[in-house]
Amino acid sequence: MSLTVQDIGEQGLLKRVQAFCPSAIVGDDAAVLPTEPGKSIVITSDVLVDGVHFSDQTTLPESAGWRAIAANLSDLAAMGASPLGITVGLGLPKTTPVEWVERLYQGMSDCLNQFGGAIVGGDLCRSTVITLAITAFGQVDPDRVILRSTAQLGDAIFVTGFHGSSRAGLEMLLNSDHTQDRASLIRAHQYPIPRFDLPEFSTRVSGMDSSDGLADAVLQICRMSGVGAKLDRALIPIDPALKQWVSTEQAIDWALYGGEDFELVLCLPLEQAQQWVKLVKGSAIVGEITSDPIVQLIDSSGEFVDRSLSLNQGFQHFSSS
Amino acid sequence: MSLTVQDIGEQGLLKRVQAFCPSAIVGDDAAVLPTEPGKSIVITSDVLVDGVHFSDQTTLPESAGWRAIAANLSDLAAMGASPLGITVGLGLPKTTPVEWVERLYQGMSDCLNQFGGAIVGGDLCRSTVITLAITAFGQVDPDRVILRSTAQLGDAIFVTGFHGSSRAGLEMLLNSDHTQDRASLIRAHQYPIPRFDLPEFSTRVSGMDSSDGLADAVLQICRMSGVGAKLDRALIPIDPALKQWVSTEQAIDWALYGGEDFELVLCLPLEQAQQWVKLVKGSAIVGEITSDPIVQLIDSSGEFVDRSLSLNQGFQHFSSS
Repeated sequence: MSLTVQDIGEQGLLKRVQAFCPSAIVGDDAAVLPTEPGKSIVITSDVLVDGVHFSDQTTLPESAGWRAIAANLSDLAAMGASPLGITVGLGLPKTTPVEWVERLYQGMSDCLNQFGGAIVGGDLCRSTVITLAITAFGQVDPDRVILRSTAQLGDAIFVTGFHGSSRAGLEMLLNSDHTQDRASLIRAHQYPIPRFDLPEFSTRVSGMDSSDGLADAVLQICRMSGVGAKLDRALIPIDPALKQWVSTEQAIDWALYGGEDFELVLCLPLEQAQQWVKLVKGSAIVGEITSDPIVQLIDSSGEFVDRSLSLNQGFQHFSSS
Repeated sequence: MSLTVQDIGEQGLLKRVQAFCPSAIVGDDAAVLPTEPGKSIVITSDVLVDGVHFSDQTTLPESAGWRAIAANLSDLAAMGASPLGITVGLGLPKTTPVEWVERLYQGMSDCLNQFGGAIVGGDLCRSTVITLAITAFGQVDPDRVILRSTAQLGDAIFVTGFHGSSRAGLEMLLNSDHTQDRASLIRAHQYPIPRFDLPEFSTRVSGMDSSDGLADAVLQICRMSGVGAKLDRALIPIDPALKQWVSTEQAIDWALYGGEDFELVLCLPLEQAQQWVKLVKGSAIVGEITSDPIVQLIDSSGEFVDRSLSLNQGFQHFSSS
């Protein structure tokens, strides 16, 4: 029997296909390509499949469209880039209602109108399952690119906002629990906000977005920068509505592993991070970069015991579980 | 009952989704975006689905990969652009053999190595059907962009090479008819060549590629340029292997409607076109641009009667037939 994708998992497959890619370019949230002169182009892609990434139970077509764009724009934001445009590839079963498609495009269009960029091309084709392929491209000053690989010992770990809300919102949608005073959680899941509101900066900033969870982001940054981190659970910004709804332990679990919050997780000198906390509403410093190549989860509130995060706890698209 | 994609067809659906796109940018083979200063970026996308665009019966995974890239590079060539890079989005059933995926990437990589560009990013995800989403981007001197909308009365219609071969090759593969002396047809189907070998030019050139057939290309150019055309069936370059295999009528039918030959169909002043015929091996002048807004199919050999082409004879991805 030959190996299947399931057999080697996402990381194994990635490793194999990256053998065909220029290693200097792939591996970050988006590709940076030199153009002459001045700005560099930044490109990022996502493929979203009905029943895997969205479903009629939890996602209105407008929301599926918004989320697809927001996720890609967030990758641009995580590179320090500003959006230029996107292409939309759409595979559709013959029986798909036109209205569904229009509402999908409406959601995409709404998100682009708010954050910049436009639909500049794409492809429509027949498929047995609704498939949405987004490519977003933007531009960035090559001196202001935010990479995962440049975090340094002593950096503060800065996050732009709440974590765990998207996962909580999904849970509410799955259980049809639409309590009015938790609407912020559902909104966080359906209409996430890409973070293009960082202050201007002229020094090194390292990082990525938290699309696969805060824990995954910190692990990826540490792995690529050859450093470790100390992450304080008590400092992670969590929506009060979430704290009210579930136990602290559950809330922190969703914050660390839930994913799709699309906040930025950035490593930068402490003094600058402290400035940014004042300038970016809802942001916080949640830890620091250390030399020991592990990620320690501490809890300055003393409620939970310290532990170390494994590099294997990230999201695996092809895992059998 | 709400309308389905099938109900309104590809053109109807396109019209609806283009309402959300900047009309100045969409509608050509690829999007042209101004960058400053100098070159513009060109972006194009395709989504390919197993069982729709390729199948194990007719397409080795290497060939599926090559064709996906060649089709997108051909769109860049049809804009007068040179390739910079591509992103690859891949949706896969859990049971897909890893070897299949590697061979797919090998084919993509082979094509990029030959014509330029590199895989600079992408996305892998789970799906119920193998889905390949390609976005290619390139750059072009904004003064040398080849548009569909600028053909002028009196222009010669120039094609870069054989038409009908890809459709013929598919037919042979479907019928397991792999006759050695028709290998060029199978190769045309499995490994089409994007045409980056145009001579340098400094004057207006209008046109597109013949991905949906020569007839469709001429119709699209005429529609967007507000002109008509006279197309001479006797002048269409057809592989001698194809002429030997089927009737002239069948060969011309495939040349006009078969598609996927990925040649360029260009409109330019006659004198320059005559120069190009000498410079581009296998190319030919097949007709001329007229003022009457119809496409007349003539036959200077006198074998077939004249007729007019309808604007509706292009390829319809969602048609029920």
